[in-house]
Amino acid sequence: MKAAFLIASAVATLFAGAAALAASQEPIQPIAPAKVRNPAMVELGKKLFFEPRLSRSGFISCNSCHNLSMGGSDNLKTSIGHNWQKGPINSPTVLNATLNIAQFWDGRAKDLKEQAGGPIANPGEMAFTHELAVDVLKSIPQYTSEFRQVFPNGKVDMANITQAIAAFEETLVTPNARFDKWLKGDRKALTAQEVRGYQTFKNAGCVACHNGPAVGGNSFQKFGIVEAYKTASTAQGRMAVTGKDADRFNFKVPTLRNVELTYPYFHDGEAATLHQAVDTMARLQLGRTFSDGELNDVVAFLKTLTGEQPNFKLPILPPSSDSTPRPHPFND
Amino acid sequence: MKAAFLIASAVATLFAGAAALAASQEPIQPIAPAKVRNPAMVELGKKLFFEPRLSRSGFISCNSCHNLSMGGSDNLKTSIGHNWQKGPINSPTVLNATLNIAQFWDGRAKDLKEQAGGPIANPGEMAFTHELAVDVLKSIPQYTSEFRQVFPNGKVDMANITQAIAAFEETLVTPNARFDKWLKGDRKALTAQEVRGYQTFKNAGCVACHNGPAVGGNSFQKFGIVEAYKTASTAQGRMAVTGKDADRFNFKVPTLRNVELTYPYFHDGEAATLHQAVDTMARLQLGRTFSDGELNDVVAFLKTLTGEQPNFKLPILPPSSDSTPRPHPFND
Repeated sequence: MKAAFLIASAVATLFAGAAALAASQEPIQPIAPAKVRNPAMVELGKKLFFEPRLSRSGFISCNSCHNLSMGGSDNLKTSIGHNWQKGPINSPTVLNATLNIAQFWDGRAKDLKEQAGGPIANPGEMAFTHELAVDVLKSIPQYTSEFRQVFPNGKVDMANITQAIAAFEETLVTPNARFDKWLKGDRKALTAQEVRGYQTFKNAGCVACHNGPAVGGNSFQKFGIVEAYKTASTAQGRMAVTGKDADRFNFKVPTLRNVELTYPYFHDGEAATLHQAVDTMARLQLGRTFSDGELNDVVAFLKTLTGEQPNFKLPILPPSSDSTPRPHPFND
Repeated sequence: MKAAFLIASAVATLFAGAAALAASQEPIQPIAPAKVRNPAMVELGKKLFFEPRLSRSGFISCNSCHNLSMGGSDNLKTSIGHNWQKGPINSPTVLNATLNIAQFWDGRAKDLKEQAGGPIANPGEMAFTHELAVDVLKSIPQYTSEFRQVFPNGKVDMANITQAIAAFEETLVTPNARFDKWLKGDRKALTAQEVRGYQTFKNAGCVACHNGPAVGGNSFQKFGIVEAYKTASTAQGRMAVTGKDADRFNFKVPTLRNVELTYPYFHDGEAATLHQAVDTMARLQLGRTFSDGELNDVVAFLKTLTGEQPNFKLPILPPSSDSTPRPHPFND
């Protein structure tokens, strides 16, 4: 029994080793599960992610536009902000965002912590101020107690608020997609069509930008290389950050992880379906026109990138105290 | 061992019996845990409760205004509807709503199933139509499959949609509040002040309307009996349903379960704190002016009515298909 087990283990290790070698030769790598270093901070950040009292209206939370029930996005062309303002750009998924080279489509935030403060104070999004957000949380005993437990300096301030939100967001990775299982050696994890789609995805050159564990997210690229992209959106991309004309229409390459869930596509949300998005990208970026068969194959492959979705209990938020500043949804 | 156990059991039964007897003599009874008869229907209803694609915008779900992270309410004076419309009335909590005599402040829906269809088609709330809501769900393979599994007739229609939502909402009871533990005989579950508050609550006459397991929810009463209630709200209460002038300003008595979480109070949301609400009710309904001590005691008692909050995993919603009608948040 024991010897047989040892042999079986050794064989399994060999196979796993071979599969790992094969995976390392692919331009896409499996996503590693989240390593939670500070569970208490993650729990606090989860509450804050769902906390509408971080908005002027008391109605909009991070989860409003990065809805974790819907692929970490809102599935709208552009988001709805305070007073039903129409956002300027498609809300990117928060899933696997920790793998991004930088945050926002134009990369203007270097990391999740820097990103998290943006929407709170953006007049077109949550329309609050950092000072008022801090005042609200400071007035809620359960929050002040949690901040004291989680942070060495115990402060309720934006540095700690955004650090907690970022710590939660770092857990929002989606491992064990069927494609990852295939990469790790489970050849039955994909159908023949899905494998064919992956080959087309590689051979056509999509992997030039969509590579790495996030299948994107790790570079800025011009949208419309072979052919210009026509859009009513006024977003200028990376130029808004660098000021360089050469960066006009350079956007962060979005991750394709969970892309089945994060429709509509592109920074302006104008591609409603994966077929449209793949067809447009092939033509504009690669100068290729995919046949219907190729399109179907690539779309089938892309749907294998859906990984394990957020798996946690709905957070229960602590009640306001009598001294908590009340929300002002209607400017009253 | 066995005999000792039997004796201990008998004694425990005796005590439990005595406590049950004591509880039955109180005007408030403990809340019973939910009995889930059809788990698959509850799971489907949970998804639909969190489903923003039941709204015209694709942004508003049942959970937007009956937020299960926040006591089943939105903690706003009145709710925010499609296109940021200001709602006419305070959003009542969905927690323990299954115990209500009828639904809505004016009781215009006889049960949760009848209620659930209202906001979807209300132009000031989710602003959709029942036909379009059904079309959306029908276009999503995972939903059609779930409806087939859950319902004998397998149909995706409003009858089944609202039945599933109601089945989920029936599970949203909040047992085991500290007050319930006290009712069941655990005398250490309340402080002396909280017991004093309960005595005042009974002696002053609050229990005349706020009684039963839900501490309310089981009758319609005139708001402003001893003294008129002044409000800018145009809500007429029960008269809107019966057409009888005598029902003007008759509202469903709200449950006081979890009242610590469901601020602000009254149908117009004009009482920001429990102190204000209790003070107003005592004066207008009972002709009493509570002392500061009495107010503090009653508020302390009311906070013992917070029960076990919803305890489930965030539902993951199935993605739209290529044929799913897209949302129209901006009338575009």
